[in-house]
Amino acid sequence: MKKASIILHSGDLDKAYSALIIGNGALAMGLEATLFFTFWGLERLKKGKLDKAKLCRRNLFGLGRWIMKKKMKKANLASLEKLLKNYKELGGKIIACEMTMEIMGIRKEDLREEIIDEYGAVGTFINEAKESKINLFI
Amino acid sequence: MKKASIILHSGDLDKAYSALIIGNGALAMGLEATLFFTFWGLERLKKGKLDKAKLCRRNLFGLGRWIMKKKMKKANLASLEKLLKNYKELGGKIIACEMTMEIMGIRKEDLREEIIDEYGAVGTFINEAKESKINLFI
Amino acid sequence: MKKASIILHSGDLDKAYSALIIGNGALAMGLEATLFFTFWGLERLKKGKLDKAKLCRRNLFGLGRWIMKKKMKKANLASLEKLLKNYKELGGKIIACEMTMEIMGIRKEDLREEIIDEYGAVGTFINEAKESKINLFI
Repeated sequence: MKKASIILHSGDLDKAYSALIIGNGALAMGLEATLFFTFWGLERLKKGKLDKAKLCRRNLFGLGRWIMKKKMKKANLASLEKLLKNYKELGGKIIACEMTMEIMGIRKEDLREEIIDEYGAVGTFINEAKESKINLFI
Repeated sequence: MKKASIILHSGDLDKAYSALIIGNGALAMGLEATLFFTFWGLERLKKGKLDKAKLCRRNLFGLGRWIMKKKMKKANLASLEKLLKNYKELGGKIIACEMTMEIMGIRKEDLREEIIDEYGAVGTFINEAKESKINLFI
Repeated sequence: MKKASIILHSGDLDKAYSALIIGNGALAMGLEATLFFTFWGLERLKKGKLDKAKLCRRNLFGLGRWIMKKKMKKANLASLEKLLKNYKELGGKIIACEMTMEIMGIRKEDLREEIIDEYGAVGTFINEAKESKINLFI
């Protein structure tokens, strides 16, 4: 079976959307999917942080956070929470980066352990990626 | 025939350059190429927006927009407009993300319809990507 | 033998870490690895620039540069310099983007020539990428 492996390095809300939309899309098309959360991306797996908007360049100079949220709602775009729920129900795999946990001082109990399938390092990712048809760094 | 599928998520000028240069490079080397414009990247397909520089971190703290444009000109770097023209002439495919259009309130008539081959969602991208040798998220 | 080809487009410190960690991980798992330094990423190959932190959004609004460096040290994370040394010792390949050199006015003597295996353009990258199992744009 073909597989998609996606690294989520960025902490940006829009990048988390892209990662989960692509992951769900892969699963819906019959592929396997693995999301590897690392660096700022791992922050999104902390309790209560998934849908939290961060100040970012785009929020300062472009579309504001509030406007974007409103537009997303109007377009019936699911929340990241809903996308993550679908992702897990469709059999998507989630790996949390152990090295990031160590650097950032993140403990397992800070993370949503119930949705994490594996704690791994770069070797874990390479093993997934070298068997994958689609590899993306987001 | 081998294929390259590139998602352009970013709206940054330098990222648009990378996407089009890689797309053209792939076509020139005998591969097929698909560019999927989504999120801020889709803004670049609006009429009159392709070569427009945006304020970005790099413009504030690093190389200024004006200096960069001047250097590009001096180095005989083609404009994005020229790169896009070559891309289409070499047979490159362009997909516009329908979900982004809905969220951002972008209508077909806002976009340069004559260069868009298809309006699609994530499934369209997955279908391209799972048959591609090179997949990139930019 | 399987290969990983990574474009480092970003000049951000954390992105350079990701590129080198993934490159080293690939080599350690028995794959070949190629890093293609382009745009702001190429700046990291200038003499004395690899570990230099830049002002970036994250430094302004998130973790400060100083705090991040301290955390990295505490977690025994190797410097980029050390990661690069390992990368070369494990047989990793480094390509510098000639087009970027021309645009930015970077001369060979500005770069650390002793670690660069090849100066190439987009065609060089496509040739590597189309034979690679893992392709990433960072």
